[in-house]
Amino acid sequence: MPSPSTAAPQRVVLFTDDDPLLLDGGGRLDHVEVAYETWGTLAPDASNAVFVCHALTGDAHATGTPEAPGWWETMVGPGRPVDTERFFVICPNLLGGCRGTTGPASVDPATGSPYGLDFPLLTVRDFVTVHRRLARHLGIDRMLAVVGGSLGGMQALQWALDAPEEVARAVVVAGSSRLSAQNIAFSAVARSAIMRDPGFADGRYAEGDGPRTGLAIARMMAHITYLSEQAMAEKFGRRFQDADEPRHRFGVDFAVESYLEHQGQTFLDRFDALSYLYLSRSLDYFDCFAEPDATDALTAADDPTRFLVVSFDSDWRFATSHSRRIVRELERARVPVSFREVSAPHGHDSFLLDDDDYLGTVAAFLDQAAEQAAGQAGGKGAGRAS
Amino acid sequence: MPSPSTAAPQRVVLFTDDDPLLLDGGGRLDHVEVAYETWGTLAPDASNAVFVCHALTGDAHATGTPEAPGWWETMVGPGRPVDTERFFVICPNLLGGCRGTTGPASVDPATGSPYGLDFPLLTVRDFVTVHRRLARHLGIDRMLAVVGGSLGGMQALQWALDAPEEVARAVVVAGSSRLSAQNIAFSAVARSAIMRDPGFADGRYAEGDGPRTGLAIARMMAHITYLSEQAMAEKFGRRFQDADEPRHRFGVDFAVESYLEHQGQTFLDRFDALSYLYLSRSLDYFDCFAEPDATDALTAADDPTRFLVVSFDSDWRFATSHSRRIVRELERARVPVSFREVSAPHGHDSFLLDDDDYLGTVAAFLDQAAEQAAGQAGGKGAGRAS
Repeated sequence: MPSPSTAAPQRVVLFTDDDPLLLDGGGRLDHVEVAYETWGTLAPDASNAVFVCHALTGDAHATGTPEAPGWWETMVGPGRPVDTERFFVICPNLLGGCRGTTGPASVDPATGSPYGLDFPLLTVRDFVTVHRRLARHLGIDRMLAVVGGSLGGMQALQWALDAPEEVARAVVVAGSSRLSAQNIAFSAVARSAIMRDPGFADGRYAEGDGPRTGLAIARMMAHITYLSEQAMAEKFGRRFQDADEPRHRFGVDFAVESYLEHQGQTFLDRFDALSYLYLSRSLDYFDCFAEPDATDALTAADDPTRFLVVSFDSDWRFATSHSRRIVRELERARVPVSFREVSAPHGHDSFLLDDDDYLGTVAAFLDQAAEQAAGQAGGKGAGRAS
Repeated sequence: MPSPSTAAPQRVVLFTDDDPLLLDGGGRLDHVEVAYETWGTLAPDASNAVFVCHALTGDAHATGTPEAPGWWETMVGPGRPVDTERFFVICPNLLGGCRGTTGPASVDPATGSPYGLDFPLLTVRDFVTVHRRLARHLGIDRMLAVVGGSLGGMQALQWALDAPEEVARAVVVAGSSRLSAQNIAFSAVARSAIMRDPGFADGRYAEGDGPRTGLAIARMMAHITYLSEQAMAEKFGRRFQDADEPRHRFGVDFAVESYLEHQGQTFLDRFDALSYLYLSRSLDYFDCFAEPDATDALTAADDPTRFLVVSFDSDWRFATSHSRRIVRELERARVPVSFREVSAPHGHDSFLLDDDDYLGTVAAFLDQAAEQAAGQAGGKGAGRAS
């Protein structure tokens, strides 16, 4: 059992060569270490656990301090929807990531060198398999809720499909059940920029600088898709970065160029190009309702997962149509699902931002989860007493 | 006077050191050669000239043969809206381009070496200044129509604003009077990919391969913005390029990836990276209604330019809102303007494609132009006879 509340990420080895991680695509990993953070106190009956799944370039640090804030401060923390004073909150770094969990930059025990492109291809189900093992390690059989945005939402969805008995509620924000050709196209260009960069060196760049140009370009392009056209217009318009300076010709001149350059550069300090390839590719292949029996376990569950699906009307990365498809498939599977399209101007990034309507909806859904759990505990108690 | 109909591009020197091209931004070019093609026969009174302006990566070859088709076969040719059996049609390669007209890859007469980044920054007005000189060279005082899509439409618009007496009608298809922050953002990432490519060598790559990776990435990304999400979904969906082959991991796997790779590679054979920088930058700075007196000449003209503005409902590169802004400004200037939003599924690329509704609208507008010109000629004749 972990300490009830931690400030720094912990690490745990969840799979070893005696008990390897068997991957969805047929490969295996003989050593998987996971970095994760937790907040709050796990109830004695383990009934208050909320699992937070991060998106493409996130990490375990969902919430922190004013000096070292997390990536989801709006959602996670004292008095926030995922209330760390009430819930025991867990957030791991994803398998294939570069922030403490085993990934392509980790050392392959078979060779003593970093995996590079020898790392196996991953699927969202593989992420979930690792999450499930972490949950068991922490002594939790059933999550009160699994919560995520974008790729994080896909993990919540896949977990509920794979093991509905482990997920009382799933919150799928700005997610998708399968990417469109346009979604894949953007990822393909990003990967191409990384892999064509001479610094990529076929993935064996551990000694060098790595594909810094390619990774910056990938990040800049991705940022365009995370913001709505309207949000970009309001934030930057056609304003010059420095109206008094002479025009910089082809360098940074407009404020929006300065923003993108900054996003590209700062990303280099915190993210690895190989992780970008692996995690983005898992998105492309994700198609969780493709198999005819995809929802069978969910439909057959005694107490199936209840879903909250949230989209944002200005999101063009995963537009509301993606969320509607999820809702349609879940309704077809006869499971309880609430859907909310939130009117918010910031595009896909809205899932990270402060919006009363959005956060209030998630808070209410998690309140119900807590009440229901308390009711069931009370019911059980009453049953035992009778 | 040129031969009445030509199949191959001609070249003409339009500016020399005795009579240099004075640029909008303050610079000058002492030697400007222009490559252009013409089709059809100029009427004795030069009343049937239609000027076609190309977009970002076009050239003078608007229409050709089945073996060597042009980039606008749907619009230009015998029996097409810009009817080469009826009109004398002119299409030059743009200043700053790389298909025969003076551009950054041309030799700077002052140094004997290619200009590279010493080439001056260009504006849409500079393109128009060269067009106007070419028209005079061909003996045409007034165009029956100036027609263009995207950046081509901007040239038509700017020409009418600068010299309305020279443009009887202007057809502005899928254009914009000023780019949005998102538009600029995509161009900025494209330029960044080119300029960060080690092959760019600060623009002095004439001896080497040039920034092939950067230029391919720029083109791939641009192609995403030229197609609607719906068109991409219908054309490629989530189909694999070769369903029987093993997955290519991070290479080309989905059909949409194959398409983008192909577009990126073929572009390298026909376009120059420096021209991409210069022409795309001219788009960013274009803001033709910014000056308070921008429409004064147009409003004051005895016989002001008549406009047809066309947008496509699935175009998200220059959405209908861009065209509506043009229409609003022209209406404010009290000039005759027709506006048509065409329902077409293919996004920005629709302006190049066969669509009866779109092409019929342009054909009708040009028919009226021809009838009006004939009526005026008849009127003049009657005047002289009386």
